[in-house]
Amino acid sequence: MPTISEKAKKMPASPIRKLVPYAEAAKKLGRKVYHLNIGQPDIETPGIALDSVKNMKERVIEYSHSAGNQSYREKLAGYYKGIDIDINANDIIITNGGSEAIIFAFMTCLNPGDEVIIPEPFYANYNGFAVTAGIEVKPITSSINNDFALPAIEEFEKIITPKTKGIVICNPNNPTGYLYSEKELRELSLLVKKYDLYLFSDEVYREFCYDGENHFSAMHIEGLENNVILLDSVSKRYSMCGVRVGAMISKNKDLMSYAMKFAQARLCPPSLGQIASEAALETPKAYFDEVYAEYIERRNFMVEKLNNMEGVYCPKPKGAFYTVVKLPIDDSDRFAQWILEDFEYNNQTVMVAPATGFYSTPGLGKNEVRIAYVLKKEDLANAMEVLEAALKAYPGRKL
Amino acid sequence: MPTISEKAKKMPASPIRKLVPYAEAAKKLGRKVYHLNIGQPDIETPGIALDSVKNMKERVIEYSHSAGNQSYREKLAGYYKGIDIDINANDIIITNGGSEAIIFAFMTCLNPGDEVIIPEPFYANYNGFAVTAGIEVKPITSSINNDFALPAIEEFEKIITPKTKGIVICNPNNPTGYLYSEKELRELSLLVKKYDLYLFSDEVYREFCYDGENHFSAMHIEGLENNVILLDSVSKRYSMCGVRVGAMISKNKDLMSYAMKFAQARLCPPSLGQIASEAALETPKAYFDEVYAEYIERRNFMVEKLNNMEGVYCPKPKGAFYTVVKLPIDDSDRFAQWILEDFEYNNQTVMVAPATGFYSTPGLGKNEVRIAYVLKKEDLANAMEVLEAALKAYPGRKL
Repeated sequence: MPTISEKAKKMPASPIRKLVPYAEAAKKLGRKVYHLNIGQPDIETPGIALDSVKNMKERVIEYSHSAGNQSYREKLAGYYKGIDIDINANDIIITNGGSEAIIFAFMTCLNPGDEVIIPEPFYANYNGFAVTAGIEVKPITSSINNDFALPAIEEFEKIITPKTKGIVICNPNNPTGYLYSEKELRELSLLVKKYDLYLFSDEVYREFCYDGENHFSAMHIEGLENNVILLDSVSKRYSMCGVRVGAMISKNKDLMSYAMKFAQARLCPPSLGQIASEAALETPKAYFDEVYAEYIERRNFMVEKLNNMEGVYCPKPKGAFYTVVKLPIDDSDRFAQWILEDFEYNNQTVMVAPATGFYSTPGLGKNEVRIAYVLKKEDLANAMEVLEAALKAYPGRKL
Repeated sequence: MPTISEKAKKMPASPIRKLVPYAEAAKKLGRKVYHLNIGQPDIETPGIALDSVKNMKERVIEYSHSAGNQSYREKLAGYYKGIDIDINANDIIITNGGSEAIIFAFMTCLNPGDEVIIPEPFYANYNGFAVTAGIEVKPITSSINNDFALPAIEEFEKIITPKTKGIVICNPNNPTGYLYSEKELRELSLLVKKYDLYLFSDEVYREFCYDGENHFSAMHIEGLENNVILLDSVSKRYSMCGVRVGAMISKNKDLMSYAMKFAQARLCPPSLGQIASEAALETPKAYFDEVYAEYIERRNFMVEKLNNMEGVYCPKPKGAFYTVVKLPIDDSDRFAQWILEDFEYNNQTVMVAPATGFYSTPGLGKNEVRIAYVLKKEDLANAMEVLEAALKAYPGRKL
């Protein structure tokens, strides 16, 4: 049998995937499983986006431009201008979801063996994209003790080597829900400038900022035009994760002309998803107000419930729809499996994502899990009850 | 400014893209440009596929399974069983077009520095995927003198090194339209077995076989289950290139479990495209009969016209909807630019793809161009008139 590549062997398996058989087994036993583990919102896709596809006039679903439809990119540039990001259609490459934007960015900017620094816990799939590009992730630990704020700039500087070529931030953050402040980003930008690094800024949760906080984008920083690559997606903004439409954006024209070669090789992003995404730009403000109110209510409810449980600490996330919460447990992987396999409460259980999968440093995240508040409040209320009961019953309880 | 990666610098620019400004300039001058250069058919997408999207009931466009919807994969396995390819849903990973299938296959099977042998001329984007994966393409030249038949097996054997890990074939072939015979594939399979190579078989034009010839798939070869990776796409079959739905298929379960890690990292293939693709499996036979009759008529017309031009030789392609044709010209890149820039016939001109872009060996393809017969007959007739006149007027004419 021919051999498997080293990269394939190195590709991390998702820490959630291994729990799937246990969730399926629980469902087979007739148990209700509340999925707190996923980033798939239950919010409806805007009607205007669904209708655009239903009413399409095309008789041939053709290839689009490799950078995405011109009409979509022009309107999308308008969306960015509306949030003070001054780009035009040619600064945008539409991608197969935010995932492909990250891969294109890594492939265009980094050589095998190069290093990127990422504050941990971080979105686990960055590991997979790093392996794909043959680069190394150097984690820098952010702590639940200060609600996962950006680590001090000196900490970044300590791990910079000649191989360091970039920093990846996710803002608002998945998995922590932390929203980086303008001050934090400006401090980071000085470092980026000093070492002439790339700043890969994943801002797919931009619309989900709470408590009156504004989103400050890496693209807002003057003088960093050649360093910043904005990674974006319509998945969360319009609750249409399945359309697979993202974007790689930069004002660095040289960089974008090279990235286009990767885009051309794979022909184009999905045409149907682009139709929906272009239409979604006209989503009425009322939709977002409703979504916003819904998430705020869920978050407030969940954070309060969690912090009232003995031995639990949940920061109040200011963005996205996740939180990383500290639990009185010995091992989050063991706990996440146990709760599906050996526990039920009124014939219900929950699935959570062990935080170990979001840390790169071995041993971290053992007493933390990521919870996504993507369920409606009644379900979230039941899930919190189940979780509280489970924490009391868990044999590995550790206060 | 931070540096660009070596891979990005090495990524080939499409030989067609550089002609685009000349085509646009010709259009600005009011000239009609016939596009013989592209693989975008003008055939309508099956109504059943379009309707499936228009009538969808989903209110949230969710992520699908990373391998693609179970229902789609099950029906797709049924499609393959219907053409004597005995696979099941778990042997299939649905991808973002055939492009991603190739990338996943290269990434899973090959290490940087590994070599794959590809008969040239070949689909130019294989070069881009090879650069992405960090592998080397070793071309083996097929010749217009025997209509681009598979080169002799001894020729393959001559260039096999310890680094050779696979062979890529495209059958029916883009760009040549050549249909490999069962005999050719069985000979190739002995070599694959002898050196325990991967056989990457790109069969996206499977439905386009003419003159009563049957398509023989690499998956039909017994005993090669662990070596063959089938690369497929709905783009051409159902004339819906823009849905971006392809597939990586193999009976090698170990291999597929590793490939799944790449699929999971990028979350999922497009949900809307999968709805269309699943519905398209019910396309009535009458649709294909009509498409088939249309392509046959176009091909016969075009081949006859071309072979009646002085100094032109066009093989009669038995598959796909391309041909590589020999022209009495000094330099196909120069000719392709000249015809757009400096030539018009009754205010019309044509765009062709210089064959140099499909050869890996420098200097080959200088007197060949690829022509796609994706235009309706009236347009094709005009395009042939233009081409004939252009060949007579071209300053670099070389009989």
